[in-house]
Amino acid sequence: MKVLVIGGDGYCGWATALYLSNKGHDVGILDNLSRRDWDSQLGVNTLTPIAPIQKRIERWKDLTGKNIDLFVGDITDYSFLSQALRQFEPGAIVHFGEQRSAPYSMIDREHAVFTQVNNVVGTLNILYAMKEDFPECHLVKLGTMGEYGTPNIDIEEGYITIEHNGRTDTLPYPKQPGSFYHLSKVHDSHNIHFACKIWGLRATDLNQGVVYGVLTDETGMDELLINRLDYDGVFGTALNRFCIQAAIGHPLTVYGKGGQTRAFLDIRDTIRCIEIAIENPAYAGKFRVFNQFTELFSVGDLALMVKKAGNSLGLNVEIDHLENPRVELEEHYFNAKNTNLLDLGLQPHKLSDSLLDSLMNFATKYKGRVDKEQILPKVSWRRK
Amino acid sequence: MKVLVIGGDGYCGWATALYLSNKGHDVGILDNLSRRDWDSQLGVNTLTPIAPIQKRIERWKDLTGKNIDLFVGDITDYSFLSQALRQFEPGAIVHFGEQRSAPYSMIDREHAVFTQVNNVVGTLNILYAMKEDFPECHLVKLGTMGEYGTPNIDIEEGYITIEHNGRTDTLPYPKQPGSFYHLSKVHDSHNIHFACKIWGLRATDLNQGVVYGVLTDETGMDELLINRLDYDGVFGTALNRFCIQAAIGHPLTVYGKGGQTRAFLDIRDTIRCIEIAIENPAYAGKFRVFNQFTELFSVGDLALMVKKAGNSLGLNVEIDHLENPRVELEEHYFNAKNTNLLDLGLQPHKLSDSLLDSLMNFATKYKGRVDKEQILPKVSWRRK
Repeated sequence: MKVLVIGGDGYCGWATALYLSNKGHDVGILDNLSRRDWDSQLGVNTLTPIAPIQKRIERWKDLTGKNIDLFVGDITDYSFLSQALRQFEPGAIVHFGEQRSAPYSMIDREHAVFTQVNNVVGTLNILYAMKEDFPECHLVKLGTMGEYGTPNIDIEEGYITIEHNGRTDTLPYPKQPGSFYHLSKVHDSHNIHFACKIWGLRATDLNQGVVYGVLTDETGMDELLINRLDYDGVFGTALNRFCIQAAIGHPLTVYGKGGQTRAFLDIRDTIRCIEIAIENPAYAGKFRVFNQFTELFSVGDLALMVKKAGNSLGLNVEIDHLENPRVELEEHYFNAKNTNLLDLGLQPHKLSDSLLDSLMNFATKYKGRVDKEQILPKVSWRRK
Repeated sequence: MKVLVIGGDGYCGWATALYLSNKGHDVGILDNLSRRDWDSQLGVNTLTPIAPIQKRIERWKDLTGKNIDLFVGDITDYSFLSQALRQFEPGAIVHFGEQRSAPYSMIDREHAVFTQVNNVVGTLNILYAMKEDFPECHLVKLGTMGEYGTPNIDIEEGYITIEHNGRTDTLPYPKQPGSFYHLSKVHDSHNIHFACKIWGLRATDLNQGVVYGVLTDETGMDELLINRLDYDGVFGTALNRFCIQAAIGHPLTVYGKGGQTRAFLDIRDTIRCIEIAIENPAYAGKFRVFNQFTELFSVGDLALMVKKAGNSLGLNVEIDHLENPRVELEEHYFNAKNTNLLDLGLQPHKLSDSLLDSLMNFATKYKGRVDKEQILPKVSWRRK
């Protein structure tokens, strides 16, 4: 199938594009390369050195003989987007092309407004372009488990059946997002749902957990194909940061009590989930929601797992608790469903198995590139 | 109290500003006058002739001795907004300053994107300006009953207590908005809720029904103070359109079966609800939601009421059913709660009492200004 990966130069997008290309799909990448630009603005960098997208695609072709089309431009520019789609003629669009950092969206008003406008308008443009020219195309949109927040009831996959005053309906699951970024994803979900309803479009919203791991079969073929490993206070995740802290002998920095429980998955499961979604498209008019994760951990759990993995490599690992820069519950109920993708054939990797080979080994190998000034959080959710 | 009415040149905003001024509040109006501009773009006009805002405010001062400060500018321009707030120093902000037409938002991609960016960014800017300089100020934000859509269970006021798998939580009521405009309001609600939570701001979201009526004590004082009466296919409501159709001998144009049930209130109740919200501010950190309406009617009910009122004036009124340009259920359950404002003292006007004096009389008086070409719907929700 012709699959356009929007945001294919980013962490999940790059791994997905190569995986789908390797599986025989005809893949295009559309990206404005803004992820690299944001790193420059903030003065941060991925631990692993990332080659220019053109060089990566060239190397991929050298190694596999497979071609990936490249469209460099911005989906908030409708005429660019529309022309690229008409040229590529996608059967499925995988949409990773959004600003995806909660701390980035919380830096200040400008970053909050940018994140919401960029993400919401980009997705609106895709919906309109599909409506105009590709109404049968399947949109596979990346949402986030963070859209749900931490309700005191079980989290279902996108919808919940509510019995109330003797009547029953199945309604969109109530959302309690925890940053202006997470809010932008909730806005997207509502917009996509509506577009499916009125125009008969088909879409799958993948509410993804926190993705970890550097290694996939494809990105591991050559150092020029290596994937990102972000550890800074803005784009890095807690797990990445802990691995790198362990590697350089810095105490692991748990925010607050560490009871914050989140959903996680290996990057190898991300790319498989995308494949499953593409192979099983949503019906016309259907806004389908899958929760895309494999395991639940608290931040404290992660710190202990990294400490143990570090110890097995002979590293001495300490755990610190920092004042939490975020406004969030630090102890709460969290139980989310994830059966839709498992029922369609996902076979999960386990963090306990991946931690060493796909994270700690990379952290150790590239630890000379660590900028220690970027590890601690600088963005606060609170009013001064 | 110092009350800034954002969007005070519009239909609800103008009536609110005069009412609060009359009640002794120190009122400012902030408006970019875009409502007048959109009329010009579309080639439509309110049935009642509206004077320039400067003339209206001048006349108000002549009649009552009361001053209303005027700030002409756009809330999506943060530096303008921030300066205006610092100059006025509001104790409460009433925010009507959004693009409020569902059909306008459905004209095409540009109007959809404009509506969402305009509304969401304007509200984000207000939240940031409050956070920076007026964290104690009470935001009274106009939402819409249309945010809820037409669920098959009772509609509560903003939140619903859900029992699920043996656990219970009170969560934001699930939203199913029916246009890109209604979606923008849902986005706003989520953003405001979050800002209250992280910054301790206080906000009341008034999910308002369809407002009808021209007359208030204040706008009736002088023709220069008269309020809008929009009847065109984009900014007009069904009820206004029916009254004007009855006045000029045009059949009433019901969209589809006419079983679409919505919530309604008299403009005199709108302004009283705003007063009630201001007099009973939300607690710091609280995102409070009131459903602001007094009666429920189906579109078919409205047509019959207008026919009856028209007959009593000696008019011969026919009812036609047009193909529905919207995608919506035409027969559905609809039962919404509205006890919060009633408990705080709202005493509703009834449509049956207001129809003649506040609508039919104006429709008849100004029927010479009707542009018949603007009556039928031109904007479709559907893919061609």
